[in-house]
Amino acid sequence: MEVNSQMKDGKYAADISSIREAQVRISSLIHRTPVFSSETLDSMAGRKLLFKCECFQKGGAFKFRGACNAIFSLDDDQAAKGVVTHSSGNHAAALALAAKLRGIPAYIVIPKNAPKCKVENVLRYGGQVIWSEPTIRSREDMATKVLQETGSVLVHPYNDGRILSGQGTISLEFLEQAPEIDTLIVPISGGGLISGVALAAKSINPAIRVFAAEPEGANDAAQSKAAGRIITLPETNTVADGLRASLGDLTWPIVRDLVDDIIIVEDKEILEAMRLCYEILKVAVEPSGAIGLAAVLSDGFRKHPSWKDCSNIGIILSGGNVDLDVLWDSFKK
Amino acid sequence: MEVNSQMKDGKYAADISSIREAQVRISSLIHRTPVFSSETLDSMAGRKLLFKCECFQKGGAFKFRGACNAIFSLDDDQAAKGVVTHSSGNHAAALALAAKLRGIPAYIVIPKNAPKCKVENVLRYGGQVIWSEPTIRSREDMATKVLQETGSVLVHPYNDGRILSGQGTISLEFLEQAPEIDTLIVPISGGGLISGVALAAKSINPAIRVFAAEPEGANDAAQSKAAGRIITLPETNTVADGLRASLGDLTWPIVRDLVDDIIIVEDKEILEAMRLCYEILKVAVEPSGAIGLAAVLSDGFRKHPSWKDCSNIGIILSGGNVDLDVLWDSFKK
Repeated sequence: MEVNSQMKDGKYAADISSIREAQVRISSLIHRTPVFSSETLDSMAGRKLLFKCECFQKGGAFKFRGACNAIFSLDDDQAAKGVVTHSSGNHAAALALAAKLRGIPAYIVIPKNAPKCKVENVLRYGGQVIWSEPTIRSREDMATKVLQETGSVLVHPYNDGRILSGQGTISLEFLEQAPEIDTLIVPISGGGLISGVALAAKSINPAIRVFAAEPEGANDAAQSKAAGRIITLPETNTVADGLRASLGDLTWPIVRDLVDDIIIVEDKEILEAMRLCYEILKVAVEPSGAIGLAAVLSDGFRKHPSWKDCSNIGIILSGGNVDLDVLWDSFKK
Repeated sequence: MEVNSQMKDGKYAADISSIREAQVRISSLIHRTPVFSSETLDSMAGRKLLFKCECFQKGGAFKFRGACNAIFSLDDDQAAKGVVTHSSGNHAAALALAAKLRGIPAYIVIPKNAPKCKVENVLRYGGQVIWSEPTIRSREDMATKVLQETGSVLVHPYNDGRILSGQGTISLEFLEQAPEIDTLIVPISGGGLISGVALAAKSINPAIRVFAAEPEGANDAAQSKAAGRIITLPETNTVADGLRASLGDLTWPIVRDLVDDIIIVEDKEILEAMRLCYEILKVAVEPSGAIGLAAVLSDGFRKHPSWKDCSNIGIILSGGNVDLDVLWDSFKK
């Protein structure tokens, strides 16, 4: 059992103990999100699908779990100076909301091209928005400047053990709600969600399969797995605005070791899956949130060697923060 | 307590006993739908809002409750010949699905202008679609023809005690999930939903307020309450395609006696409420389903004498069957 020995060695930035501690820390602050299923979608997929609806999480996405765990892990002196992050949106809103609950300031560096609704969420939760150019470099520079000026603590959107541990609490709930799950399909971007989810799920059930779902136009994780090292892309092109980040040095080893495979999907498959979520499940998901369903229904997955063994697939609908205007323009393309 | 004595006299087509019987009959067949809340919407309304998410009900709407109760009330000989109905959609899909569960035929007369997704639902559930012109007269004539040819049983969308009793089970669940509710806001069309809901709710808590929400362009219930008799409109004009029916002789006495008032809302308020359901609650509702939230946020309700006393408002999000294409065209108007 190489996997378990690795975890016991503390090889990764989180483990089942830190995830269980996170659950104790945040359980009174977060929603225990429901698990939905649909006979219509089951018959489309030819197997049982179970949807963990993190779009109903506070702040509209799973990100609130990690943000809560990070913020409520701080000692009082650290906390008082506030937190800072740069994010395309859901982590930003989540951090602002968690900071509001603790009564500390949250400084949020946001690229100018972020979806309007995500910015509105940050403002609604009392976050202090600091605009940057839409490049990783500009975002990081601006965050560093704020850190220096305020003495606040950086909470990275995903390359942070506290964040991984918080996201991992999804698996604890999901496998309790639906212990029959034999396969998990999880969106991948920077790897924070899937790292936490895989660590917890494989600790509970070492036989469980964990697949990542990644957009064709931002397939750095698939390229990284193939190359055996972190690959970053000069640019990304996908409708899934939450899935454009690159793996970090804390998430990469977990993705490398614990993610069984990566399923690549096209934007049109993501949009079709999003439409199914609206029309069949009646759940409003963002493109990034629908990618797990897109992966299950994709030709690529149907041809996968494991396909026939995946009888009960758990899919994380990771978030639901979408501008309806932008959504519609996507459908019309 | 005039209300209770009326119910005990068997004055209405349903009562708390028939509603509790319905609950026993259908509870293993239906979803116990969740209750959602949102601090953002609470602060917009200035009070606590609790949303009963019937859009997550099987078939995508509350209608499945009444349809199940009607179909599983039939004796075997009656049932074998099947059921027939005419409906703008949600009742049709619900009846088809309930008939499928019992293994009997469902003949569904549908007007040619019904939303595509509602027709697709009927077909998905194995209903036999019979098209009519988009008039009540044509629908009823066609239904009569089918009844004569098949010997099947008519299950009216709302003017039927079994239907009222099934819909009333919503109140039993809702007041158990959120006993603090002091006010219910319920969409009104033919009156099947609000009649069942009001009968059950006022039986459990006689002090509870029950308000109907009705579109300005189909305000026959408000006109009926004002006139003291059933008023039918020569035509209706509203984006809420599920709210165009007129009261029936079984629902009217209950609406007259037990509905405290009717809140009229404009189509633009309905569409704005629908957007809030998508963007804040992450729940896909149809226009008819969002009208309760529209009513709570309307100027009309804020000026209502009861406004200041409504601290915990229960809102029924009645359904979520919407063509995204049609939805978007509505927003663009």
